[in-house]
Amino acid sequence: MKELEEYIRRFGTVKEGNVLKVDAFLNHQCDVALFDRMGEEWARLFAGKPVDKILTIEASGIGIACVAARHFNNVPVVFAKKYQSINLDGEQYATSIHSFTKQKDFHVIVAKKFLSAGEHVLLIDDFLANGCALNGLIEICEAAGAVVEGIGIAIEKGFQDGGASLRERGYDLQSLAIVDAMDPATGEIEFR
Amino acid sequence: MKELEEYIRRFGTVKEGNVLKVDAFLNHQCDVALFDRMGEEWARLFAGKPVDKILTIEASGIGIACVAARHFNNVPVVFAKKYQSINLDGEQYATSIHSFTKQKDFHVIVAKKFLSAGEHVLLIDDFLANGCALNGLIEICEAAGAVVEGIGIAIEKGFQDGGASLRERGYDLQSLAIVDAMDPATGEIEFR
Repeated sequence: MKELEEYIRRFGTVKEGNVLKVDAFLNHQCDVALFDRMGEEWARLFAGKPVDKILTIEASGIGIACVAARHFNNVPVVFAKKYQSINLDGEQYATSIHSFTKQKDFHVIVAKKFLSAGEHVLLIDDFLANGCALNGLIEICEAAGAVVEGIGIAIEKGFQDGGASLRERGYDLQSLAIVDAMDPATGEIEFR
Repeated sequence: MKELEEYIRRFGTVKEGNVLKVDAFLNHQCDVALFDRMGEEWARLFAGKPVDKILTIEASGIGIACVAARHFNNVPVVFAKKYQSINLDGEQYATSIHSFTKQKDFHVIVAKKFLSAGEHVLLIDDFLANGCALNGLIEICEAAGAVVEGIGIAIEKGFQDGGASLRERGYDLQSLAIVDAMDPATGEIEFR
């Protein structure tokens, strides 16, 4: 999506350690008009797929998913919740996710009543790097018996292996911008 | 807002300890069509007020604020981020908020570049009980020199003192549903 690439070039910042800061429009300040056009683009890319529900993960995925849902007949959006520790009461699907950014594990849960066997689910998130968060959401869908119809990502870091691995496993992964290389010294960003 | 009251009665659950669970449509599973009509209602209630930006707090406020923003000319939505601990680098407004639900303090931050002196800000959140989270957001606006034009809340617990205290201080607080009493034994909910 050319427009998203332009936003990233214009408002994004490349930092040491493969960090791409896009907090000006994506994950701290939110450009909701852009989110709406991203939703429109995902609707085009996933046209014809049955989508009963959108599943995302707090916090940065929520705004994008809720705005995008308008283009999927206002299906319910469920966001997985993050916890440092967890007391499972049997009413939740839970999994553990390692965050490389924060260098720690956290738990995510989805209440069982909000994800059912046979439901057709679209996963949406802001970033895909090594794929830990998405793999957690996929595990939760598998536990529920829900069908992952597709994965919509705003920005994929193409130089990390999450995207390639998900495509190899057969998932319909649509990243609106794929960064293949970025240089903290010059700020240059190369898109696929 | 009658429709929200009906949602609360129909899909909400009253639990011991003044807990009102609305995770079926508000803060775990999100009914985005309802969020859109809530945004429309806030736009009506705050008509004529200048709104440059919507400020909310992660996680449950984000979806509501991002969908509502459509009715405020797609102004940017900024969400305050929660941290357990914080290293202030001078580039963030920060404050500490006590969560009665989780019985602990957490820090919230907003990057200084996303909130400016003289900006007209609408605060949006899902719940108002004792007002701790909102007071934190107001403090951050004060530190930035931003003007709080109004406060839009989905559900106010009218039997706790946050709402009364904010109205006394002169804030234009618009709660779409105010719960004056609720009974965990019968599940009955009384609206103002």
